[in-house]
Parts: sequence; structure tokens; C-alpha cells
Amino acid sequence: MPLWKALEGARVLDLAQPMRKGMPQSPNHPPFRMTLERRHGDLVRPGGGSAANEIIVTGAHVGTHVDALAHVSQDGLLHGGRPAAEVMSQDGFAELGIDAFEPYVGRCVLLDVAAVHGVAALPPGYEVTVDDLERAAAGLELREGDAVLVGTGWSRHWAAASQEVDFAGARGGAPGPGVDAARWLAARRPRVVGGETIAFEHVPPGRGHATLPVHRIMLVESGVNIVETMRLDELLDSGAREFLLVLNPLPIVGATGAPVRPLAVLGGSEGLGASEG
Amino acid sequence: MPLWKALEGARVLDLAQPMRKGMPQSPNHPPFRMTLERRHGDLVRPGGGSAANEIIVTGAHVGTHVDALAHVSQDGLLHGGRPAAEVMSQDGFAELGIDAFEPYVGRCVLLDVAAVHGVAALPPGYEVTVDDLERAAAGLELREGDAVLVGTGWSRHWAAASQEVDFAGARGGAPGPGVDAARWLAARRPRVVGGETIAFEHVPPGRGHATLPVHRIMLVESGVNIVETMRLDELLDSGAREFLLVLNPLPIVGATGAPVRPLAVLGGSEGLGASEG
Amino acid sequence: MPLWKALEGARVLDLAQPMRKGMPQSPNHPPFRMTLERRHGDLVRPGGGSAANEIIVTGAHVGTHVDALAHVSQDGLLHGGRPAAEVMSQDGFAELGIDAFEPYVGRCVLLDVAAVHGVAALPPGYEVTVDDLERAAAGLELREGDAVLVGTGWSRHWAAASQEVDFAGARGGAPGPGVDAARWLAARRPRVVGGETIAFEHVPPGRGHATLPVHRIMLVESGVNIVETMRLDELLDSGAREFLLVLNPLPIVGATGAPVRPLAVLGGSEGLGASEG
Amino acid sequence: MPLWKALEGARVLDLAQPMRKGMPQSPNHPPFRMTLERRHGDLVRPGGGSAANEIIVTGAHVGTHVDALAHVSQDGLLHGGRPAAEVMSQDGFAELGIDAFEPYVGRCVLLDVAAVHGVAALPPGYEVTVDDLERAAAGLELREGDAVLVGTGWSRHWAAASQEVDFAGARGGAPGPGVDAARWLAARRPRVVGGETIAFEHVPPGRGHATLPVHRIMLVESGVNIVETMRLDELLDSGAREFLLVLNPLPIVGATGAPVRPLAVLGGSEGLGASEG
Repeated sequence: MPLWKALEGARVLDLAQPMRKGMPQSPNHPPFRMTLERRHGDLVRPGGGSAANEIIVTGAHVGTHVDALAHVSQDGLLHGGRPAAEVMSQDGFAELGIDAFEPYVGRCVLLDVAAVHGVAALPPGYEVTVDDLERAAAGLELREGDAVLVGTGWSRHWAAASQEVDFAGARGGAPGPGVDAARWLAARRPRVVGGETIAFEHVPPGRGHATLPVHRIMLVESGVNIVETMRLDELLDSGAREFLLVLNPLPIVGATGAPVRPLAVLGGSEGLGASEG
Repeated sequence: MPLWKALEGARVLDLAQPMRKGMPQSPNHPPFRMTLERRHGDLVRPGGGSAANEIIVTGAHVGTHVDALAHVSQDGLLHGGRPAAEVMSQDGFAELGIDAFEPYVGRCVLLDVAAVHGVAALPPGYEVTVDDLERAAAGLELREGDAVLVGTGWSRHWAAASQEVDFAGARGGAPGPGVDAARWLAARRPRVVGGETIAFEHVPPGRGHATLPVHRIMLVESGVNIVETMRLDELLDSGAREFLLVLNPLPIVGATGAPVRPLAVLGGSEGLGASEG
Repeated sequence: MPLWKALEGARVLDLAQPMRKGMPQSPNHPPFRMTLERRHGDLVRPGGGSAANEIIVTGAHVGTHVDALAHVSQDGLLHGGRPAAEVMSQDGFAELGIDAFEPYVGRCVLLDVAAVHGVAALPPGYEVTVDDLERAAAGLELREGDAVLVGTGWSRHWAAASQEVDFAGARGGAPGPGVDAARWLAARRPRVVGGETIAFEHVPPGRGHATLPVHRIMLVESGVNIVETMRLDELLDSGAREFLLVLNPLPIVGATGAPVRPLAVLGGSEGLGASEG
Repeated sequence: MPLWKALEGARVLDLAQPMRKGMPQSPNHPPFRMTLERRHGDLVRPGGGSAANEIIVTGAHVGTHVDALAHVSQDGLLHGGRPAAEVMSQDGFAELGIDAFEPYVGRCVLLDVAAVHGVAALPPGYEVTVDDLERAAAGLELREGDAVLVGTGWSRHWAAASQEVDFAGARGGAPGPGVDAARWLAARRPRVVGGETIAFEHVPPGRGHATLPVHRIMLVESGVNIVETMRLDELLDSGAREFLLVLNPLPIVGATGAPVRPLAVLGGSEGLGASEG
């Protein structure tokens, strides 16, 4: 059976947050802004046709996006010991940029830590522990090269995010894996890890994004890319814990990351597995 | 069998052109530009860590991208007769923007018109005809709601594009479906059509992108989205004519289009169909 | 005596605030951002030379700037009863844009309202009244076509502006002329008025920039341009109340405003007037 | 007599080219683009008022602008021997940026080399020589610290600039001082030099802006700022050769240059000097 037929009837979940001016994002990055430049009626062609289009200004690390390995360095070195200065120029990164990330189409495991604690969303500043991950992974195989997502339920706050709801966690922090949990994840040798918060990792209250040790562990030490600001609420609710993930960030040559619209594809020609029930 | 298992061993083809400053694009849209803003070493944290990131300025219709239905109007009206002025504001389009495009994961048919003519790439300014499409579609089923790509071989010129190679066709035109071919395509009621050139449609020599009747037929009259500037060379060479396509443009709320990194997934758990041989 | 000789020994005061990322500005406008794009060493020419340069993203109404008459409309009409829709397009404004503002080199009067109240800076949300202006104007001639600045002392807060110091007045408001004071100013038929706050006019606490009646009075009803976010502290301290002003906003064709670096030139070949003592 | 009175009746010449999308500029810099973001009618307040504003994306070296000393380095060093790397960061230049340029209000001398040759504009690729400058300077005093402009007549081509008229000189070159003429100018120790072309200096045919030795001489070796892309046609026609110049580039902190709207002020309370006749 051809693949396209195998996927007929599959359920496709959009794991990206909608991108719009004012959406929550890290203050370290240029704010997203989309402006209509030409509007219908500005320039009407003789036959009555007209086109509209926009200009977009943005950072690469806004909305749902993938961190390239080149995003973080330690003591001047990128992953694999490459000196950052040698591959960095006005054109971005000659190596380890997001264009070096091969699109991922494959198995993904969701570790639902919110469910472990019986909550819809983990509290601000909560540090996800090794024990949390092990309990969430019970009955699930974590294979080398697969994708692993850590569910915190944090994306449920997106729509209400504002000055009242501190999505970025600038004041109250954000839930996510701490250093030990990150090492546990890295030891499984995944292709990529991801989550719902802006920084993926544990942000303690009042600390902001000042130090990001989990980024160092994943990107520099382990060569594992990170997907951030994912929309997982619907996936968490679906009960699926093992599914097909499509992760294809924009191929921006030399960039330290890129926006992406990840898709989870649930179901199969022979029905859902127990884990997807 | 779960879907992710069905896809193990599948061949994934990246159908997006790499995005970089100076790449070919329509002069009607803001030029793509990615600049490193923060470099490694600019701000080294106490522990020796450092992060780099960029600022991006771009149009939505640059690189490989999907046109939203709101992109074109005729006599002031968008698809379905909606007055453009009613849904257009500083926030973009309240309806028919690219965020209204549901990600597509499904069957795609490739009509290889270059192969019909026995050439690697159709000549500049060549108008793809109904006869061309019918010959390219021989033996292939075109179903309502599927994706249809028209192969011209034009993406083979991308890497060499420059002032010498006129990728956009400003002077010599670009190959693509003319009005009759567009009506033939629209009559099959596809979900989306796509191709390798910047405008998808036939651009006669010396005319540039001044009038784009095929855009009107597809976007306004038929409600069919268009994918442009695709990288199809590898797909054309693969011989696959029927395959799984993933098309998930960035969800930019209210935009008239968005960049995308489409993927073709070839193969299947039960082997390739004859058409993919 | 040639003019350049007449100005030798004159004291030139820079009335512009320095422009940098994160400076206070109205949330209604795109934030100012300057990023080095090419750095020294990125591209070293054979002889050892290298150039650096930047990319700038900004609104026109950030930092010290002049409002064009096209900036505000009332009931769809611009100054002089021109329908806004008729002169507005993707290229900006065909009339009444900032390029229609002829550079001003001439007499300027400073009405120091802070001094009237014996304070370094007026309190947040203070409404400058007609009585304030009349007291500040005592002994000063206000001539048709001259420039008039209203001193509030607010620019003294610029350097400390931050989340703690609410320069924009989003919460506590900002001092400035109310409606009556604006009518008093407009009746003197100045060429341009200006001040130190972001909106020039009185912003009551808790109101933000939601309604700006003084903008309507000045720009739409009276055809008087407004200079905002000026740095007047040094000028206020100088004691000069009548001086030469140079006001030459960037000639951005069709824009609703433009940044400017205004200069006050104090002194003269035959000595300071009493008012400049 | 106060200064403002001394300037009454003076003639003010705008020496800036109008800034608009598509204007001639160096390909080394981000293209200027101004887009209306909010239009009248997008958001009408209860009382019927509405505001329009824009977003601007640009390089600092576009339109009429001043080069900061930090713009060019030689062997890694800026003017005065400062290593570029020490003062360069994500915030631009901590020293020698355009914010270090004190606004200039003073005497300016115009050396009209086009007049020396009896032409309206020097031909493309013409190298201005020491002899040209000496003949143009006949009868004019060049004092240390003054501004010196070199007239080539090139700004007469601005309005017609297009693919036909090669304003930037990419193919045919542009007229301007060569290395010897630059050393002659630098030896007079001016505060600033300026001209009508994009690069100020001699650009030989077919060379583009690949090497710019005059920039090195002025910015690095001599500490003399450069004004480029000036509009001098009206000034050349006026016959004024010695006049008051106002040069106040935008105070963009850390930038390698900034746009400016220079003004020439002609005349004086005691009449024009012979040189202004």
C-alpha cells in the first residue's frame, strides 16, 4: 500500500502556535511583526485584479521553532568542539546552522509529566525531575534517534498570555526539565527534544532566561536540537504517546534556528496502538 | 501497524529551496535578509556560555511558499465574493489568510511536463498547455482534494540563478500553465497546486509579473492555493509521480502567504507503486 | 558679515535623544532596533581593509521626531479637508507627508512651564493650562510662523527610563498641554510646536495614548506640526527662551513622520538677548 | 542682533536626497523600505479620529548620510589605532560610532570641480585630481576644522536614476577624488568632507565598491567623516562657494553611520560675500 493511502483517515494535529504581533516570546529576540505592505486596491491592474502582500520582521526564535546546534556555545566552542568564531560571519553559520538540520519524519514519544502529577499544567517554575520522566515514560520505548517531547501543559496558557499570564516566565518562572532530567534525556540519544515553553528547560522564578544550562547540555554537549513553544494541548488530550512527527523548520541558511509548523499524525492503517488510544 | 512504523525506510525529499540573502525572488516583495544580531562572544555568561541569534526581514512570498486565498482579489472581491476591504486591516486578513490553510498531509500527483517534452527544463517563457497536462497525467488519477504539482524542471536553475540566469523571468519569461491549462487544473478541484517558478504560471518574455491571470483563476475563482518556488529537481529525477506530500506553511495570522518546507515522502511498507518506480 | 561668521562662537545644543534599542517609545509604533550586520573582520579585502555596517528597523515616530500632518485624520479627513483615502497608498501619502515639511531654520520660543511651577519637571499626568502658558510666555513675543516649545522638564527622566520610570506615561500619565492650552497655542499660528514627552500632549493617568485630542487640534484643524520626545533639559537649564532652531526631519517620501536631530543655536555676534542670559 | 534675526531672509537649501523605496544606494547595505503599517480607517476611535504610521527597514548608509569613523578599519584597527574587536558588539560600537559625531554648524567650502571642467556633471569614472581641487579652491580659504564639499554635478542624475542611469556606478564607475586628491583634502584637516555620489570617492568603471582607499585615508588615517549621496545641484547652481552648513546626523548609538538632512544656509545680515554672488 502506498504511503499516502496508509495515511488516509489519519488525524493530523498542528503543533505550532499561531504567529502574530504581540505573541509571547523571549525578550532576547527581535519581536515578530507582520505588516500588510500592499493592500487590495492600492494597485489595480487594468483587468480589475489586485494583489496584497506583507513585510515580516522577526527573530528566528519566535513562535514554535527549532534551535540549531549553532545557537549556543560553551567557552567559545560549538558542538563537536568547533570554535564558534571560525564558522560565524555576516552570512551566519557555515556549519551547524538550522540548514544542517535534516527534516525529521519519524517516531515521536510524548512524556506527559503533567499527567504524572494529575494536573492540566505544571505550575510556574516547576523543575521536571528524572523521576517525573521515568514515570511518564513507563511502558514507552525511547529509541536512539527518535524525537521526545516533554508535556507540561504550559501551552494551555498561550491564548490567555498577556501581562497577567506570564507565559515567558519572566517573573514566576516556567516548568521544564532541570539539569538532571536533561542529562537523562540526552542519555537516550534522541534526535530532537521539544516542549511547550519558550525555553524548554526549567526557569526558576525571578531568573528569566539568564542562564540556560539545559541548552548547553542538549545543543553543545549532546548535539540534540530543541523545539520550543510547541502547542501540545490537543496532543496531550488525545492520549497519544507514540506517533508520527513531522518536523521541517524553514531552511534558513546559516541561521541559529528557524520557525516550524510541526505536525503529529495519529492513527494508522491497522488502527491505533494501545498507546494511542 | 502504527504510522511511524509504516514510514520507516521511506525516502523523504525536501522540496524547499534554501533561504538566503540574494536568492531569486519576485521584485514585488520585500527581499529576504537574515542577519546575525548577537554573536557568540558578545555576551558571555559567568559560566562561559554564550548564545547567538538573528533578525530576519522578509516578505511572505519569498523562497518556497504557499499563497493564501487572500493574496489576490478581482474587482475588489476575494474568493467566495467577500469584499477585500471588509476583512483587511493593520492586522492582515481576518478571513482567507494563510492561517486559514489547514496543513496538508496527503496524496500528491506530479505532472512532469518537462518529461513530456523530453527536456530537463522547459524553456523560458514556455506556456504549458492542456495537451501537455493531459499527456503528463496519462495513467495518473487526479482526485478532488489532492495536491497537484506541475514539473517544469525550472528549479534546476536555482543554484546558478544570478544576473546571468534570469530565474524570475523578468526578461525572458518563465515556463508555466497558461489560462487554459489553469482552467483544466481547476476543473479537477485540487486542494492545492504548485510548481518550481516564482509565479507558478506562464510568464511571457518581457512581461514580468504584471498580470497574473492564473492566480485569479486559482485563488479567486477556484479557491485553490498555490505553492511557488518549489525545489522539484530531485523529485522529478526520482520518477515518483504519486506520493505523500506534507505541506505546512507557517501559521502567520492574517498573512497573504507564508514560507513552507514541503516534504515528499516516497515508498511504503508494501513497496512502491508502479508510478513511483 | 557672512552667516557662518555670525555663528562662530555660538553654542549649539543637541535637542535629540540618543536612539538605541529599548529606549522609551510609544507602543503603537514599531520598536527601534539597530543591529550590526557586517562586522570588521567578516570580509577583509586583500589590502587589509574592512567595513562594518548595520540594519535598522524602526517606526518613524520613535526617538525625537516630527509628526507630519498626514499622521492624524478626523472623520476620514486630513488637514484642509482632504480625504485620507485619496492620498494614501502602498507608497505612503502623496500629500501632507513629512516630505512636505520644509526644513525650519528660524526663531523659536521656549515656554518653560516647569519653571512657572518652580519644579525641575512637571508631575506625571499634569495638564498644562492656558494660564501656565501665559505665565511662561510673559515678556516673550509669539509670532505667526515661529516655532514654540513647551518645557515640562520631562526629558530629565529619559536616562532613567525603564519599567520603574514610566517615561511613556502608560500608567501614571504624562504632562502636557490639554485641549484649551492647545487651542491657545494654535491661535498663535506657529509653524510647529514641540515638547519632551512622547505624545506632546496631556496624557491623564491610566489612559495611555488612547485618545489624543491635541493631535487633532494641531495636525488636522490647524496644520501645525508637532515635535515629540525632544531633549530639552540642557536648553531649559541654559535660560534661553528665544533662540535659533534648526528642525530638519529626514525627507522620507510619503511618511507620517520622521526622526530628526533638532539643534538650538544660542548666542549671536552682538551678544545674547536678555532672554538668553 | 540675535542669531535668529541674523538668519531672517537667509536662503536655506536642502542638501538631502528624498528617501524612498528603490532609490539608488550601495548594494552592500540593506535596502531602504518604508511601509504604511496602520492606515487611516484601520482603527477609528469613538470620536472619529484615526492615526496612520509606518515601519521602516533600512541601512544607515542609504540616502544622504554621514559615515562614522567606526565604519572602516585597516588591519583590524580603527582610527587612532583602536582595535575594532575591542569596541564592537551586538550594541554596535562603543567608540567612534556616529553618536560620537558632534553636530556641525559652521563654515563650509564647496569645491566645484564640474565647473573647473565647464560641465554640468563629471563623466562616470572620472578621477578628481589634486590639480582639479586646487583650481576649484582658487580664492577660497580652507581652514582646519571646516567642512569641504567636492562638487561633481553627479546629483543631477538622481531623479533619472534607474537601470538605465547607473547612479551607483556599478558598471561605468562614478566620479570622485582619487587617492592623491584625498590626501590633499586630508592635509587641510577638515572636520568633514562630502559629495554627491554614493561612495564619495573615485570609482573606476567595472570595479564597483570593491576597494575604497579614500575611505581608509579619510576615516581611518585622518579621522575625517564623509557625507555621501548629497544633493548639491541647487547649491552648485547658486554660485555659493562659502556658506553655513548644518550637518546633524541621527544620533543612533553605536552605528557606523546615520542618515542626515544637511542644510546650506546662504546669505547674511550684511549681504552675501563675493564668493556667494
